[in-house]
Parts: sequence; structure tokens; C-alpha cells
Amino acid sequence: MDSDTSRRNEGSVPEVKELLAATATQVDEHLPRYLPAGDRFGAQIVEAMHYSLPGGKRLRPAIVMESAETFGLPGAEVLPTACGFELFHTATLIHDDLPAIDNSPLRRGRPSCHTAFDEATAVLAGDGLIIAAYSALAAQEEVARVPAGAIVRVIGEFCTFTGATGVIGGEAADIRGEKQPLDRVLLEYIHLHKTAKLFEAATRAGAILAQAPEEQIELIGSYGRTLGLLFQVTDDILDVTSCAATLGKPVGLDDQAGKQTYPALVGVDGAGQYAEQLATQARELAEDLPANSEFWQGLIALTLERRT
Amino acid sequence: MDSDTSRRNEGSVPEVKELLAATATQVDEHLPRYLPAGDRFGAQIVEAMHYSLPGGKRLRPAIVMESAETFGLPGAEVLPTACGFELFHTATLIHDDLPAIDNSPLRRGRPSCHTAFDEATAVLAGDGLIIAAYSALAAQEEVARVPAGAIVRVIGEFCTFTGATGVIGGEAADIRGEKQPLDRVLLEYIHLHKTAKLFEAATRAGAILAQAPEEQIELIGSYGRTLGLLFQVTDDILDVTSCAATLGKPVGLDDQAGKQTYPALVGVDGAGQYAEQLATQARELAEDLPANSEFWQGLIALTLERRT
Repeated sequence: MDSDTSRRNEGSVPEVKELLAATATQVDEHLPRYLPAGDRFGAQIVEAMHYSLPGGKRLRPAIVMESAETFGLPGAEVLPTACGFELFHTATLIHDDLPAIDNSPLRRGRPSCHTAFDEATAVLAGDGLIIAAYSALAAQEEVARVPAGAIVRVIGEFCTFTGATGVIGGEAADIRGEKQPLDRVLLEYIHLHKTAKLFEAATRAGAILAQAPEEQIELIGSYGRTLGLLFQVTDDILDVTSCAATLGKPVGLDDQAGKQTYPALVGVDGAGQYAEQLATQARELAEDLPANSEFWQGLIALTLERRT
Repeated sequence: MDSDTSRRNEGSVPEVKELLAATATQVDEHLPRYLPAGDRFGAQIVEAMHYSLPGGKRLRPAIVMESAETFGLPGAEVLPTACGFELFHTATLIHDDLPAIDNSPLRRGRPSCHTAFDEATAVLAGDGLIIAAYSALAAQEEVARVPAGAIVRVIGEFCTFTGATGVIGGEAADIRGEKQPLDRVLLEYIHLHKTAKLFEAATRAGAILAQAPEEQIELIGSYGRTLGLLFQVTDDILDVTSCAATLGKPVGLDDQAGKQTYPALVGVDGAGQYAEQLATQARELAEDLPANSEFWQGLIALTLERRT
């Protein structure tokens, strides 16, 4: 491939940023639909759920929507499912920040949920957001063009990718790996489960709802998984190289906690090289997608150069 | 109604106990299907999820199954959904027992999850079980006779009855009510949300999956809600009158924590009278159900006289 082709395939970072900003606006408008109104006695828990939502990049919902677009279903038609991914992701952030887990006082640029409220409220707000996530996934039924069978499949897969075999299992391994000898196999397990599986689920969900062929669901899922691994490596790097004001959460926590990370295992430069390898793999997968290739290529470039 | 009719309608407690024991066996055989196998790095979280399951009465899954039976669908055909209710219920027990919430060292006759493992594992095991619950609800699709649309409806309703407008909202109100002046309106809110809504959801789920008419779904839901209120009042009474060895969890915790309870508000006798009122309401609702009346009546009698 000559350098011109390579440049064309990389997608345009500013265009992807613009598209992400537009989908984030749509997602932010829709998210409150899946949060209950607070009543007299339930006001605080609902407030804590709302409190934790602002400030995210809405990357996972954008991926759901763009995956649907890739297979011919307008992104707006999968907004309920897209919101489900963001609600779940936010729930995991609240629980991760708890004193018993990562004990992080700052998230999305302001005090974390248990810091702003209290621990009990943060546990329950996280639970409420996991449930709200499924509520959003089930609300996908209101979109007439998506068959109920596809929705049930997405819900079932979401469980596999997020539960003890997915995100939650990754979190558990992440904690167990603290202050243990660095171990590449464990580190790969953590990154795959904690982060990449939700990206894989997001790409697959859009494709399933758009009734894409099975081999295309697998293909875009592989892209999502690889992008997720890339995202987590860059996250590890930012924890070493960024500052809290830019990132909206504390930096240096991984090192303090003795976490398994690529910078710890192979240094910041080595981690950067691994990121480049993942980006190459993801680019190759994106080339085989039937449409929307500019977006998927641009997303890789954006992730490689991300600062937040 | 003469006393003979009244006796006939009360159902037989030994028969209901026998039926509950039989369904509990079925449920216990099925539950592991919705828990992942532990792998090298995910073993502990899965172990903590398994650890928390034994010892329950499996009342909520039995209600799902008997509700389906009431409307002509064999209970065994809704086992996935029934298991979903038990998995969710177990998740709430784990999170309730956490130091930041009820700080309870004992559950189902042995150390609570965070006592046997640690707090981080208990938070994540609870999350894993909430997700496993939805996995079971979605697995209802494997039963050919239930349409996908009914499954999506059950999942959507489950969210409403369990999230911040349901069980989780009730938990939050329960904590907020601690050491506050006793308030009947708050107490009713707590009992309705924390306990009764999951019973209502369980009765409705069986009926929805069996494709019962809407007014029958409402009717059995009202029965379930009333039974749930009765169950929680008797729970409050047992916390005052029972002992830990019988109950499998500590007693007297409500009083220690300054919780809103009926014994605190109106005394043990007053709480008993309220239980009788609820039982009367539930009996009247059960009389209008089209079938399986012996079971529903017996369940009321069993709840009134329960010791665990």
C-alpha cells in the first residue's frame, strides 16, 4: 500500500470528532428517558444516577450507532441500545471508584459518586444504572424495524460480554492482579475483559439489530475487540503521561495501586509500540467492512492520539 | 362466606410446602446454567457468585412458575425466567449486607459474601449476579412456546420493578429512613419498593409469558404485591421475635439500625394485625384467579405462619 492509500484509509480525525460530538448530543438527549423521575423518597438515588452521567465521551453508544449505520440501519434507530451501553459503562465507573475497589475521588472531572454522595448510595446508584441499561436495551422494542428476536439476542450477548465472563470478570482480575508480579497473560486477560469486550459487544449489537450477516457480525466484533484493546493501552499510557485536569480523573493511580499495565510491563515506549500493532490490526479489519470505513479508520487514529 | 368455605379457600400449608420444595429442587438444578464457569483469572468472582446462592427458599422463582401454571403454561417452561428472579434477589442480598449498607455478617446461615471473600469481590459478585439474572431472562428464548415479544416485555417490566423505581429505590429509602422519626408513609414506600414490587413482577412475569389476558396480569400482579407486603411485615416481625440460628441471618438488626418497621411503628401485635389485614386482601384477590387457587391461598397461610 502506498502512502497515499494509507492516508486515505486512515480516515479524518476532525471529521470523526465532529461525528462523535453530534452523536454524543443525541445520546445525551435520550439518556434521561431511561432514568426514572425521582419521587419523594427516591429522589437521592435518582439524583446520584443523573450526577454520574455528564462528561463522558459517549464513545460506546456512538460505536453501536455507527455499527448499525454500517449495515444499513440509521444510527438514530438504535439509540435505546446505544444508551444502554453508556448507562452500563457509567455503572461500572461508579462501582470501580468505590473505596473497596479503586478508591478514586475524581471521575469525569468532578468528585466521584461515593465522594459526592456516600458509599451506600454509590453502590445502589450503580445497581440502578445496570438495571437502567437493560431497561434501555429492552426499550429498543419501540423501534418497529428491529425484530424482538434480535433484541433478545443483544440482551443475552450483553450479559455474556459484561458479566463474570466479561467486564465484571475483568474488574475482578484487575483487583486480584494488584501488587502481583507483572504477568503478560494476566494483563491481556484484564484488558480483554475489562475493556475490549464491551467494545466488541457494542459493535456486534449495532450489527445484530441491523440484521447483518453472521460473518459480518463476527468481523465488526473483531474490530471492536481490537479497538477496545487499543483504547485500554492508551488509557494505561495516559495514566502515566497525562495530568488529572486534562483527564478528568486522577493520574498515577495504576502505579500507586501496583496494577498490571503495559507501561509497567514494557515501559511507555513499549506500550506505544503495542498500541501501533493493535492499530494496524484494527485498520486491516476495518478495510473489510462493507461501509462506513472512514469512520472506523478515523476512530483508530483518534484513539491513538487521544489525550482524554 | 361460612367458615367451611373459608377453610377450603385457605389452601393446605403442608401441600404448598411440598410443592415449594419440589420447585426449589428444579430451580437449584437450573441456576448454575446462568453462572459462568470460572477460568484461571476469573475463578474467585464466580466462586463468590456460587457461594451466595445456596440456602434460599426459592420463593420468587416458585411464584413465577406457579403463575405460568395458573394461565396454562407448565411451570418448567418458565424456569429460565424463574431463575432470573432468584439470581437478582441474591444479588440484592449481597449488596445489602455490605458494610456501607446493612453491615450484616451472616446470610442464609453462613458468613455473608463480603465476610467470606472481601468487599470488592462482594460488590462485583452482586453486579455479576444482576447481569446473570438478565442472562436467565433472555435465555427464556430457548423455550419455543414463549414469543420473543413477551420476553422483551418481561425484561422491560423487570427493570421497572427492580431499579430505582423498584427494589433499588426501596433499598435507598430503607437506608435514608434509618434513625429518622417513624413515618407510616415512608414505611409503606419501603415495603412496597424493597420487597413487594419483586413479588408483583414475579407474578406478572409468569402470566405474561403464559400470554394471560391483560386484566388477569393486573389481578395476579395485585395479589403478588399484597403477598409481598405481607412477606415483608412478617420479616419485620421475625427480626424481633426469632433467633439467628432459625433465621439464618442476624436478628434485632432493624432495631439496632433504627430502621422503619411495623413493630417499631405499631408494636409486634399491631404488626400482626396489619399482616392479617393484608392476608385478607390477598385471599380475596386469589379467589378471583382462574386456577391454582389452592396454591395461592396456601402461600398466604404459609407466609402468615412462617418462621424463616
